Amino acid sequence: MNEKFDVKITFGNNVKNTRLKQNISQEKLGDLTGLHRTYISEVERGRRNVSLENIYAISKALNVKMSELLDF
Amino acid sequence: MNEKFDVKITFGNNVKNTRLKQNISQEKLGDLTGLHRTYISEVERGRRNVSLENIYAISKALNVKMSELLDF
Repeated sequence: MNEKFDVKITFGNNVKNTRLKQNISQEKLGDLTGLHRTYISEVERGRRNVSLENIYAISKALNVKMSELLDF
Repeated sequence: MNEKFDVKITFGNNVKNTRLKQNISQEKLGDLTGLHRTYISEVERGRRNVSLENIYAISKALNVKMSELLDF
């Protein structure tokens, strides 16, 4: 089965890995971005087709450039 | 007046500049992405809070990595 590439999953993994490297909880990332913890959890599980503004908010909260979360 | 940074405008400019460098019309980019020409026009004018999947479609159509359109 030729699994279609899912950009949401790759982005979600990048957010999770970056967050964990910085020892930040989903709750804390939620606070920093103004997004709900469950939304962060869904993003990290590749369930959300995140908007540009939320991608930017997440990257700012993690102190990385958007390009670092989307380098593919 | 401290104008708040607008990620939509910067992304739109990057899409437009990349498209023009490749001599691709908005119409053609619309065809390549499956998105309507007017949607492309609104993205380039910073009027659209583009979703991750559409950012990916645009970057694929322009043959650049998403990180090149979001290097900020």
